[in-house]
Amino acid sequence: MRGNELVVDEIDEPKPGPGQVLVETLACGICGSDLHFLNHAGKMGAMADVLGSRYDPARDLVMGHEFCARVVNVGDGVSEVAAGDIVVSMPAVATADGMAAVGYSHVYGGGYAERMLLMAALCLKVPDGLDPVLAALTEPMAVGRHAVNLSGIAEGEGAVVHGCGPIGLAIVGALSIAGIGPVVAADFSAARRDLARKFGATEAVEPKRESAVGAWRRLGGGDSFVTFEAVGVPGMIDQAMREAPRGGRVLVAGVCMEPDTISPLAGIRNELTVRFSLGYTPDEFRETLELIAAGTIDAGSMVTGRVGLDGVAGAFAALANPDEHVKIMVTPNG
Amino acid sequence: MRGNELVVDEIDEPKPGPGQVLVETLACGICGSDLHFLNHAGKMGAMADVLGSRYDPARDLVMGHEFCARVVNVGDGVSEVAAGDIVVSMPAVATADGMAAVGYSHVYGGGYAERMLLMAALCLKVPDGLDPVLAALTEPMAVGRHAVNLSGIAEGEGAVVHGCGPIGLAIVGALSIAGIGPVVAADFSAARRDLARKFGATEAVEPKRESAVGAWRRLGGGDSFVTFEAVGVPGMIDQAMREAPRGGRVLVAGVCMEPDTISPLAGIRNELTVRFSLGYTPDEFRETLELIAAGTIDAGSMVTGRVGLDGVAGAFAALANPDEHVKIMVTPNG
Repeated sequence: MRGNELVVDEIDEPKPGPGQVLVETLACGICGSDLHFLNHAGKMGAMADVLGSRYDPARDLVMGHEFCARVVNVGDGVSEVAAGDIVVSMPAVATADGMAAVGYSHVYGGGYAERMLLMAALCLKVPDGLDPVLAALTEPMAVGRHAVNLSGIAEGEGAVVHGCGPIGLAIVGALSIAGIGPVVAADFSAARRDLARKFGATEAVEPKRESAVGAWRRLGGGDSFVTFEAVGVPGMIDQAMREAPRGGRVLVAGVCMEPDTISPLAGIRNELTVRFSLGYTPDEFRETLELIAAGTIDAGSMVTGRVGLDGVAGAFAALANPDEHVKIMVTPNG
Repeated sequence: MRGNELVVDEIDEPKPGPGQVLVETLACGICGSDLHFLNHAGKMGAMADVLGSRYDPARDLVMGHEFCARVVNVGDGVSEVAAGDIVVSMPAVATADGMAAVGYSHVYGGGYAERMLLMAALCLKVPDGLDPVLAALTEPMAVGRHAVNLSGIAEGEGAVVHGCGPIGLAIVGALSIAGIGPVVAADFSAARRDLARKFGATEAVEPKRESAVGAWRRLGGGDSFVTFEAVGVPGMIDQAMREAPRGGRVLVAGVCMEPDTISPLAGIRNELTVRFSLGYTPDEFRETLELIAAGTIDAGSMVTGRVGLDGVAGAFAALANPDEHVKIMVTPNG
């Protein structure tokens, strides 16, 4: 990322410091946050703030934080992994100044490059035989697992999920694994609704034809449901609040970058709880890798395209059309 | 309330139905919600929705839902109370169409009248010797107790309270009774800040001079505080969210009648929980009466004026000035 463009260029190979490993990227998913980061230069401040990084528009940055990679060599004191190991990792590296966000840091570039540095202590070995493309889905799928855990949803409750992009699908999948049902998902895209059913949604509706909560009630779901907001555009939190039942919970997983308007009275009337979710815990990340490896969920069905480094810019453009793509994998080493 | 004016007029004395009691009002506090109800005709729909009542601007309505009263006579089947008993009650009466909100219902008028109907099953006898003015504070004080309970605040945590009107003071009082500290309150009015200290606030600040969270940090409070929003004007929820710590909770007790703008990113960044509070439970109402009767808290210090029925319209106007008044009591029977 150079200014607000994606370019392919040669940079120096990074050298692993103590506790670090040099890896070659096998697969790296393109995340909606990366599209935001590229397209909304004016909102960089807020975004960088969320990530705890400092972005300097004058410096190049290599994005990509949903990756699976092979260890090339290791820095001093690394015993956790060795050259040849295939790993995934939470996209973070400890530095003297705190944690750096891999893929949003000028120093710790991400997976849209042939090679990058990771922190050995965070690397998890990928079980033998697991396709690196599936392993690379650990990160977005962990976001869904975390949102579901944070919601406190329990057996006997159902869920309404707004948005069937990667995070919405990850939430549907995590709900399905937790045995929650019925689950009604909503998305304008027919392809994404099909995926939501594959991920375990009881029903997936086109919100212009039937509201998700309407479908929930039609299914006889009653008043005990948790709403997951995974669209991330203005107005969605308000809609979720207006449609929530008495004592309802709204879990916000979609990242709305802009100011958003809500009606506090809707929250007061039903004594709602609105909870905002970010990322995942190390345990959730590890558990998600294990669930993908066990084949508990067909996460791979969300992958709709694969590109090399020269296809990244085009893939970013293609992801603007939600009917064409859901998750595109970058395979920088072919 | 006739249209958007308060008038004094004669109406028929209501007759208690089965399970109901006719009472004479001894004291009834003027609530900020009543000011909203009178002044914001355009927002009636939303307000009536919250209260579960249907308001018809063409019909008179007697407001007043924070009352203490003496039983005059009782309807069929009433054994809970008898003529002469002094009682308080949650302002609700069960009807064939659900619960009616006493003081916001055309049928069940409230305490700004000499007499009204209550539901015997909800009446609590006021302990002997307790001043009816103090007993009438049970209702607003219970709102504070409920907000504190709903927040889940626990020992070892502190609190920041925005707004020192009756609800803010009730929250400060409930926090104090629960042994929570430090508590930093904020209000533009010096008189209200003095009251907050009386109610148990560790410190009360003028928000233009020092932010409540700033004062909290100056006191060494660290990152473990719950924010209570009891102002109820646009922008306050957003401010509370922006200043909340990681994993922070914002309890919204202020009633903002208008659409309000928040920054979802502020919620996401710190994984905040925003919880909206309304009313109280029957247990909280009863416990609050007991605490007031036991003198655990000097609730009466918030009473800044007393008027008869002919002074209600003037009292509504006077309450617009937060430096002059906090809680005005109506004593319709002199």
